[in-house]
Amino acid sequence: MNTLPISYQDVVAAAERLRGVAHRTPIFRSRTLDKILGCEVFLKAENLQRGGAFKFRGAYNAISALSHAERAKGICAYSSGNHAQAVALSAQLLGTRAVIVMPADSPQLKLDATRGYGAEVVTYDRYTESREDIAARYTKERGMVLVPPFEHPLVMAGQGTCAMEILEDVPDLDALIVCTSGGGFLSGSATAVKGKTPNILVYGSEPETADDTKRSMLAGHPVGEGVPSTICDGLQTTRPGDMTFAVNKALVTDILLTSDTEVLTAMKFMFERLKLVVEPSGANALAALMSNRSLFSNKRVAVTLSGGNIDLARFIQLLHNV
Amino acid sequence: MNTLPISYQDVVAAAERLRGVAHRTPIFRSRTLDKILGCEVFLKAENLQRGGAFKFRGAYNAISALSHAERAKGICAYSSGNHAQAVALSAQLLGTRAVIVMPADSPQLKLDATRGYGAEVVTYDRYTESREDIAARYTKERGMVLVPPFEHPLVMAGQGTCAMEILEDVPDLDALIVCTSGGGFLSGSATAVKGKTPNILVYGSEPETADDTKRSMLAGHPVGEGVPSTICDGLQTTRPGDMTFAVNKALVTDILLTSDTEVLTAMKFMFERLKLVVEPSGANALAALMSNRSLFSNKRVAVTLSGGNIDLARFIQLLHNV
Repeated sequence: MNTLPISYQDVVAAAERLRGVAHRTPIFRSRTLDKILGCEVFLKAENLQRGGAFKFRGAYNAISALSHAERAKGICAYSSGNHAQAVALSAQLLGTRAVIVMPADSPQLKLDATRGYGAEVVTYDRYTESREDIAARYTKERGMVLVPPFEHPLVMAGQGTCAMEILEDVPDLDALIVCTSGGGFLSGSATAVKGKTPNILVYGSEPETADDTKRSMLAGHPVGEGVPSTICDGLQTTRPGDMTFAVNKALVTDILLTSDTEVLTAMKFMFERLKLVVEPSGANALAALMSNRSLFSNKRVAVTLSGGNIDLARFIQLLHNV
Repeated sequence: MNTLPISYQDVVAAAERLRGVAHRTPIFRSRTLDKILGCEVFLKAENLQRGGAFKFRGAYNAISALSHAERAKGICAYSSGNHAQAVALSAQLLGTRAVIVMPADSPQLKLDATRGYGAEVVTYDRYTESREDIAARYTKERGMVLVPPFEHPLVMAGQGTCAMEILEDVPDLDALIVCTSGGGFLSGSATAVKGKTPNILVYGSEPETADDTKRSMLAGHPVGEGVPSTICDGLQTTRPGDMTFAVNKALVTDILLTSDTEVLTAMKFMFERLKLVVEPSGANALAALMSNRSLFSNKRVAVTLSGGNIDLARFIQLLHNV
């Protein structure tokens, strides 16, 4: 484990940087859910995190660790999703500016929210332009620092602080389920758990149509896929990172797969019984638990609700027939 | 104030009974909301209370104060809404049984939830049968105790514990807005506030089409109305209670009125920005603030989100064009 890209101490250091800045999000219980699933479920509400998702943890950790000279030149990121808002908000809080490269057809809510945090949004046509090229213009020509969405030790360690809070708040946990796309959240979470309480099992979850991490685990090395079709728009990364995968391969027990229908059922349950808005990707880990209940029978299981950024129109479009 | 039906000490006693039983619900902030409204807003999330609404506080307070002999005979209540679930859950927690008289055409979610808390649900046809007559059968013939939804000192005092928590959590508050129907929540809240920090102004809110409390305040005595047409199904009581009105007349600054459109706007904001599901009645107080912002300019204002019990289908029906 000494050769892994991040250590438990990196997560501890991240928690120090985030103290008083990130929300310590609440853990929700539901007796109804426990009864239905035959286990004790602890729902970590990262949809209530600043910026609406766990992504704030990693972005803030990475940007706050920069030197004043680096930070003064500004931050650049490309994302159509929650990482955009996380970087924009973190840059604002740390007194620097951010350029976020986003697809021109991003949901208006996300464009507005990113601009609302004071970032400059540069839009591009996702069919004819390369976001990497555009970002390179800002990083090479203006010296801005690129903060990647997952393949970065400080981002990975920052995401791990969520699991650290779960461990502090829930005694005698048996398992933790975290959704995975590029693998930053899962690798940080697994590092936190295994560094503190190695007997707790850590599972990843991803859509069955976006199972690049599952197939990578089977292959023993990162394998890619085409852009997957899934309602979980935050889990569409086409290949795990090399660093994130190295951690996940070493520490994660298994990857559980979900269908879109299972995700919608989990979203509906969260809405009606917990009064919480969870985006599709944010409901993925709960969907994985709901469809693998035998694996967790009579266990104490924590599930991360990774984000809640979905506009009302899209929510209604997805759920009007569920 | 000595002649009012409840005192600050009654609220303090209720808080003791509810300690460790009711959730101490969180207070949410939104920088965006503060900026839009030009004031500091503190949102008390009673939609996350047990049973999905503040109603649990009053029901549990009333039932837990009964003698063992009284409690042993069981509890009866009539309600098509959140009071039903609150009484059912409280009775279950206190080891007694409850009969809840509910309209046969109540939303399935509410019937299921009430039964889920172990209550016996007796349905009636709201066009041909009297719920009072049915309830009388249980109270007179079986000796069950009727727990009314608002016109009861212990119910009123229990509802006041929510405001007490707000006062503890938010220093230097200028005003509090609480929705009102029968007036239990408002009277308990006003009693808590005025007993501890008299300079804080307490406002009620209600739909402009269900303005019986506003008109009662102008008349100086309770006046009734026909069953009002409003999306706020929890605020359709046709007349304030005598006891609740006596308190509100003495302690409440004014009643603010809302339109259905304003309520839907508030619900949408809570959904998209706070990730919280709030039922129409639960968004009423926030709608009142949003449409009376000049009244609260630069003030620190607490708003109660009184409940979150709305099924997904109804939510979509109401909000698909907003």
